[in-house]
Amino acid sequence: MKAIIITIGDEILLGQILDTNSRFIARELTKLGAETVEMRSVADDRNAIVRALNDAFLHADVVLMTGGLGPTKDDLTKKVLAEYFDCKLVENQAVYHWLTEMFADIPGRMNKYNVSQALLPEKCTPLRNLKGTASGMWFEHKKRVLISLPGVPFETEYLMHAEVLPRLKEKYTGLLLRFKMVTVFDVPESEIALKLANFEETLPENIHLAYLPSEGYVRLRLTAKGTAVEQLENYFDALLKELYGLPYQPSTEGDSREDLLRRLKQAGVTVATAESCTGGTIAHMITLIPGASAYFMGGVVAYSNEVKKNVLGVSAADLEKYGAVSEVVARQMAEGVRQKLGAQYAVSTTGIAGPDGGTKEKPVGTVWMAVAGPHGTVTEKMLISHTRERNIGRGSVHAIQLLLTQIEKDRTQPETH
Amino acid sequence: MKAIIITIGDEILLGQILDTNSRFIARELTKLGAETVEMRSVADDRNAIVRALNDAFLHADVVLMTGGLGPTKDDLTKKVLAEYFDCKLVENQAVYHWLTEMFADIPGRMNKYNVSQALLPEKCTPLRNLKGTASGMWFEHKKRVLISLPGVPFETEYLMHAEVLPRLKEKYTGLLLRFKMVTVFDVPESEIALKLANFEETLPENIHLAYLPSEGYVRLRLTAKGTAVEQLENYFDALLKELYGLPYQPSTEGDSREDLLRRLKQAGVTVATAESCTGGTIAHMITLIPGASAYFMGGVVAYSNEVKKNVLGVSAADLEKYGAVSEVVARQMAEGVRQKLGAQYAVSTTGIAGPDGGTKEKPVGTVWMAVAGPHGTVTEKMLISHTRERNIGRGSVHAIQLLLTQIEKDRTQPETH
Repeated sequence: MKAIIITIGDEILLGQILDTNSRFIARELTKLGAETVEMRSVADDRNAIVRALNDAFLHADVVLMTGGLGPTKDDLTKKVLAEYFDCKLVENQAVYHWLTEMFADIPGRMNKYNVSQALLPEKCTPLRNLKGTASGMWFEHKKRVLISLPGVPFETEYLMHAEVLPRLKEKYTGLLLRFKMVTVFDVPESEIALKLANFEETLPENIHLAYLPSEGYVRLRLTAKGTAVEQLENYFDALLKELYGLPYQPSTEGDSREDLLRRLKQAGVTVATAESCTGGTIAHMITLIPGASAYFMGGVVAYSNEVKKNVLGVSAADLEKYGAVSEVVARQMAEGVRQKLGAQYAVSTTGIAGPDGGTKEKPVGTVWMAVAGPHGTVTEKMLISHTRERNIGRGSVHAIQLLLTQIEKDRTQPETH
Repeated sequence: MKAIIITIGDEILLGQILDTNSRFIARELTKLGAETVEMRSVADDRNAIVRALNDAFLHADVVLMTGGLGPTKDDLTKKVLAEYFDCKLVENQAVYHWLTEMFADIPGRMNKYNVSQALLPEKCTPLRNLKGTASGMWFEHKKRVLISLPGVPFETEYLMHAEVLPRLKEKYTGLLLRFKMVTVFDVPESEIALKLANFEETLPENIHLAYLPSEGYVRLRLTAKGTAVEQLENYFDALLKELYGLPYQPSTEGDSREDLLRRLKQAGVTVATAESCTGGTIAHMITLIPGASAYFMGGVVAYSNEVKKNVLGVSAADLEKYGAVSEVVARQMAEGVRQKLGAQYAVSTTGIAGPDGGTKEKPVGTVWMAVAGPHGTVTEKMLISHTRERNIGRGSVHAIQLLLTQIEKDRTQPETH
């Protein structure tokens, strides 16, 4: 099954919002084994929508659209789809009934705009939306399928899981695409490419190796299409053999940050954080993963020096002598929060996120981090020097990496003190 | 100037990564007054790229592409562009020189893959990339412009600011598009639409009102194109008059979360956080904004009950009696962190982010929050009940709103104690 995703909305083209629906839908389709061949974002404009639809039906079996289903004048999707499929907008009795159920507890709140949500193109099968007033729509057209969903991300997600994916699974059974991932740490992309040059020559046409470089690691993705899907495992094993000697970690998912956090959760130790420049981002990342409360005690965001001193017990003399961005302070922060919160391990960061505050000795992007554990404390200095957002993000991921490395190292060593 | 953005990469179509480049580029183009008419993501595939290029040149003056410029075999962009513009890939001497400068301090690390980054289509003007080894490229083609940039977001951002935007500004001077925004809080979209129905009838064809609903607020965007740009101010003033009586806040930007944080920064008070279910997300949001250290003292992520008791001074008896997710505990957390960190205001959250841990009395998505300030403490209960990520995100934004409301209310009231 080949799919094309179309998102509709001026706010996407103006750069006001990030289109997360396309990614969500693509990820779900990939899990099904379907191939997304294109994503497109177009304006709230009749001609732009029609042009995208015409083009999509040339190249895909299934077209998934989101957006433009609201009750206000700027929402055009239903009108355009009625025209496109040459039918009328009619009040759908089932949808009207769903709406009255939704408004049953809110007497007097169902106004003419809400009622207009029951008006749908005659040829569609409505998909019930329990998270909002805009129903999804399913059209069949010349052996192809068009699905139109509301643009609000949690409504899209609800309808995909509850209505769309089960129907697609039933209709399209053959797997077309599968991939496996491996992450290689601390080796430049160009060196990995040198090492894998011969391996790449051996790959059949339907199996494809891709390099996804990030700061500090490169993810490799081996993708198989069509009949080659059955050979994927063998080629992936061969790839891992080629990587022998490099620090790598295979994963079936694609998100290496989530991998790290999953390993941290599985490590079976309690953890605390003391963050200055990363401002709570490490705690935020850890707690996004369900089940974090089983091992994460909590943390202190020690943004000001007062908090470093009064809550974490960092020495005022050392703060004065070495400055807040220093190895000594990073160490005392980690040890302080570990003791205060009674965790087995603690990680700390202190640095200059930017854009201001840098000096010649400590430029923007300088980050000191420390991990305190039952075997003592290790420290590390990084220089990141990108935008503020990136310095914070990369510093946070690196600190989690340092923490995990230390936990895993300790596990293989006898207790020294 | 009309623009089309094309991002290249199988990882986007597989749903492995979120395409943030398109949004970044679109936002910068909007600031220039340019109109982005389409965004498209295509596979690392020669035919898909050529098809996207052909189509883009039919509908835009400027085409911006990102991705596929790496040194490995899966990166096709340079080869495809050389073919498309009917020229050879040649070693560009200027680019080779830039690369040797970049590797000057890393002897022996410049391998054949790095050197290959100097191979560029003969017809391009290279754009120097100080953040990576892949240069940007600028092509002029039948009075249209094609710009190709690397896909790594901070390299895209660097090249846009340093090389692309200054050139576009010089080449395209006429403004085509402008918009203004206003956010309306706590009123359903359909009610606002009823109130604005007559106003919408008065809008000329080139001025357009859009509704962007979110949880708890609706943003309205008034966009003017072409000659109507000069009338935007007048119509926007008229729009604000129509909204009289509703709680609204105009803004020139589109991101209401950033608006909130900007107002918080400008409020001129010191702030601290005590987070349980939001796990550091409020602190993370606050510290993403440059200059946060001027008013943000820090916070405590009190994920475990031990931290609530030992660090924030929450009463063990109350934790036992009312449970961690309760008004009493939220209040004590806010008051505790305010006192401990010496801040003028403090905000707290305690709730059940899910997916597990809910009960009949306290279902997943229940969040208690409190704001402690010089005039006392206020509390609020929310029920969000979406995914974990969404419960955390929405709870955090709402807590910041509650904090800001309280600060702004206090400012207009005499001190009571």
